[in-house]
Amino acid sequence: MPISTRFSERFGLRHPVMLAPMATVADGHLAASVTAAGGLGTVGGGYGNADWLERELTAAGPHAACGFITWSLAEQPHLLDLALAHAPAGLVLSFGDPAPFANAIRGAGIPLICQVQTLALAQSALDAGADVLVAQGAEAGGHGAARGTFALVPAVVDLVHHQSPDTLVLAAGGIADGRGLAAGLMLGADGVLVGSRFYASVESPVPAELKQRVVRTGGDQTMRTTVFDVARGLDWPQPFDARVAGNQFTDDWHGAEAELARSAPAQMARYEQAVADHDPSVAAVFTGEDADLIHEVEPVATLIERMVHDAERTLRTAAGQCTDSAT
Amino acid sequence: MPISTRFSERFGLRHPVMLAPMATVADGHLAASVTAAGGLGTVGGGYGNADWLERELTAAGPHAACGFITWSLAEQPHLLDLALAHAPAGLVLSFGDPAPFANAIRGAGIPLICQVQTLALAQSALDAGADVLVAQGAEAGGHGAARGTFALVPAVVDLVHHQSPDTLVLAAGGIADGRGLAAGLMLGADGVLVGSRFYASVESPVPAELKQRVVRTGGDQTMRTTVFDVARGLDWPQPFDARVAGNQFTDDWHGAEAELARSAPAQMARYEQAVADHDPSVAAVFTGEDADLIHEVEPVATLIERMVHDAERTLRTAAGQCTDSAT
Ligand SMILES: Cc1cc2nc3c(=O)[nH]c(=O)nc-3n(C[C@H](O)[C@H](O)[C@H](O)COP(=O)(O)O)c2cc1C
Ligand SMILES: Cc1cc2nc3c(=O)[nH]c(=O)nc-3n(C[C@H](O)[C@H](O)[C@H](O)COP(=O)(O)O)c2cc1C
Repeated sequence: MPISTRFSERFGLRHPVMLAPMATVADGHLAASVTAAGGLGTVGGGYGNADWLERELTAAGPHAACGFITWSLAEQPHLLDLALAHAPAGLVLSFGDPAPFANAIRGAGIPLICQVQTLALAQSALDAGADVLVAQGAEAGGHGAARGTFALVPAVVDLVHHQSPDTLVLAAGGIADGRGLAAGLMLGADGVLVGSRFYASVESPVPAELKQRVVRTGGDQTMRTTVFDVARGLDWPQPFDARVAGNQFTDDWHGAEAELARSAPAQMARYEQAVADHDPSVAAVFTGEDADLIHEVEPVATLIERMVHDAERTLRTAAGQCTDSAT
Repeated sequence: MPISTRFSERFGLRHPVMLAPMATVADGHLAASVTAAGGLGTVGGGYGNADWLERELTAAGPHAACGFITWSLAEQPHLLDLALAHAPAGLVLSFGDPAPFANAIRGAGIPLICQVQTLALAQSALDAGADVLVAQGAEAGGHGAARGTFALVPAVVDLVHHQSPDTLVLAAGGIADGRGLAAGLMLGADGVLVGSRFYASVESPVPAELKQRVVRTGGDQTMRTTVFDVARGLDWPQPFDARVAGNQFTDDWHGAEAELARSAPAQMARYEQAVADHDPSVAAVFTGEDADLIHEVEPVATLIERMVHDAERTLRTAAGQCTDSAT
């Protein structure tokens, strides 16, 4: 019982659900799993590693998209050619002005998908000729900015409607179940982009200890911070920070970023050790406020089927509450 | 063509829409206008003034709720008796632990409505026996906290479902039109609480210049800050700050709160002058990220009718997109 939207139709999907381009997490296997389950898989190119990207795009198969962190791609623009050579189902650019890459992408006949966090960034993406805008709210796991999903999505929908009505809009940030899918569609989106929920899926390459942290934590315990970027020496531009599960590392350093920068080498070593040890008390667990809605590590197909099934049931029930349908 | 929910049924409303208890803005006239249009009007008791409250509760008529800022009510607890003597349709407590007042309210047979910003506050409200929880996300205009509406609402719905299934949940923060109402219902809410949209209504007592600022500003230009509380000498507890339209005053002081506290007398005078002058470049215009969706000052009845009509149309259209309905 699929839900058909402009997004599912245009991308030839059974379900209007896209995997978020999560750096290193959205690998070829996870992308292929989402595609096989009827959604749109995505390989998360992240900060860019040619060997990894080549391998994972191959593993993802022909019907997956590929995502880049825009400001990081600018430092290794040749990775775009590598990705385009795979003829991905879409090319996602997040966090920065897509203009320098837009012509190459659209010239190759690949849909340009821009993840945007403000109306101003939505405008830049439209100016660059984006085919799809992903309106990402601050609930989202991982990097993003301050505006909430609930009012950003309809504002982006209105902007698109006035300037470029054929451009599609996906909602992202806080979507983990059928209620989120249904609400995203109500706000005017053509589909949803989902990260945290798939991070904690069976097919995700994340160590079990980190998936369990998502299962056990709640939205109240997540926070937006730059401490993991400072520790890792990643030079994220304004206005971006990242939502993570609060842990010992954020307790130690959130609010003391200048001091952290001064102790970066030691803290980077501590951080890398924790990553190697799969220790979520120090390693970053990027997860959204929808951690509240994630209670178990489950297979991707189960998650997508339940999401669509529940969304449909919720939509039908609510339509039935419109009392004149009975008169 | 009404949308019927547990909230509209239990409170005897035509529409599942409640006026937010906006301090000084939600006066008797605005409350009566919302009630007359089929929603639930509310008088916003704010920081508490007995004469104002007595007059506005009388003007609101018998079918309105009354709201208090919990930590402020604790400084003037006699105001609760004044409000209860009007037998309001509900008593809203926001921003603090409702426990000290819960028995008096429920003992008077008045529904206890608690506005909550985190799951932890939702738990306190349930423990106090709340009849309705308003899950307020960070998109909201005015005071609140950091969690976004999109993931907070379903998390509160799940908490309530497990512990106290007869308790109702309203969604608040970023809701200004039919899409927001429909999305709130999809997230599992029984109705919505609306502030900013009614601030910029014809019946609102706000000076025209301030309403126009809401019309002209966008969500990107709003921010959460404490500067207006620091300037006014209001001792808001953690974790609360307020969403406002950015202006000269926030440009001057946001990020420099300690310095502002030191210049408080002069800045308070500057602020009060701006309020007297209806000058939104210095006075606080409390508005949500849904400022993007507010394009005109309109009558309350028009706003509510359009909200419900559009929500219903959106719900029916989406239910129709569920393709097995055609098979
Ligand atoms: C572990 C993780 C890593 C992420 N890495 C990226 C990334 O490299 N590039 C990107 O555009 N977005 C990234 N994001 C953000 C997602 O694209 C998406 O906006 C977000 O996951 C949606 O919110 P949700 O997590 O509540 O579903 C990441 C998110 C997570 C959870
Ligand atoms: C001008 C204004 C004043 C407010 N004052 C109060 C208040 O005194 N007490 C309260 O509980 N909430 C107050 N709020 C918050 C509202 O109750 C509500 O959560 C918010 O307006 C919902 O988000 P929206 O503005 O996007 O509709 C205020 C909001 C605004 C816009």
